[in-house]
Amino acid sequence: MSSQPPLGEFDIIEKFFQRSASRPDVLLGVGDDAALVTVPENNQIAISTDTLVEGVHFFSDIPPRALGHKALAVNLSDMAAMGAEPRWVTLAITLPEIDEAWLAQFSKGFYDLAEYFNVALIGGDTTKGPLSITVTVHGVVPEGKALRRDGAKPGDWVYVTGNIGDSGLALAHLQDKISLNPQQLELSLKQHYYPQPRVLAGYGLRDIASATIDISDGLYNDLQHILRKSHCSAVLNLDSLPLSETMNEAVGVDQSIALALNGGEDYELCFTVPESNKGSVDTSLSFSGIQFTCIGQLAPGHGEIKLKYQDKPYQIEPTGWDHFN
Amino acid sequence: MSSQPPLGEFDIIEKFFQRSASRPDVLLGVGDDAALVTVPENNQIAISTDTLVEGVHFFSDIPPRALGHKALAVNLSDMAAMGAEPRWVTLAITLPEIDEAWLAQFSKGFYDLAEYFNVALIGGDTTKGPLSITVTVHGVVPEGKALRRDGAKPGDWVYVTGNIGDSGLALAHLQDKISLNPQQLELSLKQHYYPQPRVLAGYGLRDIASATIDISDGLYNDLQHILRKSHCSAVLNLDSLPLSETMNEAVGVDQSIALALNGGEDYELCFTVPESNKGSVDTSLSFSGIQFTCIGQLAPGHGEIKLKYQDKPYQIEPTGWDHFN
Repeated sequence: MSSQPPLGEFDIIEKFFQRSASRPDVLLGVGDDAALVTVPENNQIAISTDTLVEGVHFFSDIPPRALGHKALAVNLSDMAAMGAEPRWVTLAITLPEIDEAWLAQFSKGFYDLAEYFNVALIGGDTTKGPLSITVTVHGVVPEGKALRRDGAKPGDWVYVTGNIGDSGLALAHLQDKISLNPQQLELSLKQHYYPQPRVLAGYGLRDIASATIDISDGLYNDLQHILRKSHCSAVLNLDSLPLSETMNEAVGVDQSIALALNGGEDYELCFTVPESNKGSVDTSLSFSGIQFTCIGQLAPGHGEIKLKYQDKPYQIEPTGWDHFN
Repeated sequence: MSSQPPLGEFDIIEKFFQRSASRPDVLLGVGDDAALVTVPENNQIAISTDTLVEGVHFFSDIPPRALGHKALAVNLSDMAAMGAEPRWVTLAITLPEIDEAWLAQFSKGFYDLAEYFNVALIGGDTTKGPLSITVTVHGVVPEGKALRRDGAKPGDWVYVTGNIGDSGLALAHLQDKISLNPQQLELSLKQHYYPQPRVLAGYGLRDIASATIDISDGLYNDLQHILRKSHCSAVLNLDSLPLSETMNEAVGVDQSIALALNGGEDYELCFTVPESNKGSVDTSLSFSGIQFTCIGQLAPGHGEIKLKYQDKPYQIEPTGWDHFN
């Protein structure tokens, strides 16, 4: 025990989570009954919330800085998937005890990402209990420009940003299912702990994508959400999947495909583009510097996904990420 | 085990939390990467978030219907304290297991209150883990009309809505600190489990109150937030405190005063009114049907609260509710 008196709830907020919000649209930040923000004319508000629970979404030995980053990143990723510009977040954090070194690292991971995207922390709640973090994020998107899941049509092309599967690769190692060498672990853990939300890609897709989702539960599962909402099926060319060299080297092609389809927590975007916009994808995304790959095409249907590898049908267990099963 | 397959995360959302949002300003509710809402012109958005954790904010034997009500009520109370009209909420719920009977009661408590105030559930996250609930609420308030904590001035009068202390009375019984008879318990538990957020009073106060807060941590603590933000002190006339007959009968005057000042979880409003608006309080609140009482007056200062009872100074331990101490 230090000789300092223990920090109380209000001290935690003041010490770690009350950096002044520098956005001019934040009229009132942390410290009143509610925050107050203004919304630009002719814009809609996108709102999303995600919880991370110890033992379910992360192991107890996750670096606190990574946890702070990830708790915000998974929510910013939802804004990216809507084509929305993230602006304001609230943070509800439940902690078993007050560990100032831990909180300093957690808030650093959180604020570094928040400042990169100019997102203001406008409110929160700190409580005692088993470790869990709930972030609610608010973004703005011009009227009628939001990227939904239900706008895809047969014939549209299916794309993903970045590489997929590396986060699942790191998770498999952390779960002792595979063993990575130090370099492979470092590269894949970076994807697992510090996913980069594809916010800029979301802006670029506003005018060209027919549907968009972020890949949190695995490409297979998340693409199915688009297919079911849009009444389509899909054919995926697995030869085209953007897989990292690290993953191919570590686990070979078949396991890489399995991790890309079902590994989850990539926080890349999966989006569909009509034939007429296919030529514009490069122009629309080039400013973002984000890589993208066409991996398949839609057909009429009700959520079916046909997998092809080297022009032959390919079978894989369609399991995703459901916390309760 | 039943012969039914267990419900997964998506089933829970569909079965219990996907009643269609009937508000025309909800363009997209549960079921995409984010919800989409529109905001009326010349309005600002008030945003607040609160977490309830088992063992900290409620006991494990709380009726699930009460928990569903309370999780929303504490957030609507923050909107009331801002003078905001609550419109949209997100619900993040972490559950140790799926108990359909429990979920049915929880969602009933939640939706009954949501429908009463025409609040739409627009998004959420269901995860497995130790029981906790985080609600984020969004309301609208005309530009410049929000009720803040920092607008009070020396000379302003201090008011509270309703009666205060009954929720703390029930809690003291649940903690085995006192023993209530069945009728006393029933009346006070109703305040503890089913607090009524003073949303309508919030509307009425927009034009007359100089500062407002909701009483979640006890009148003493919460009034201090106004005093510190507004650079004032206060004199409270304890003779005027609105105390229920039930409480007076159960624990006598001194303990009733202690519960009213420090019991917490009343979710009544404490507000200040300039002398020039004192005559308008009755008119402004009469449409709401909510009782109010003048309990003191502000003076210059830095957060001090002087207590008077029968014209003499009165001493009480200034302890509030801080989860970490």
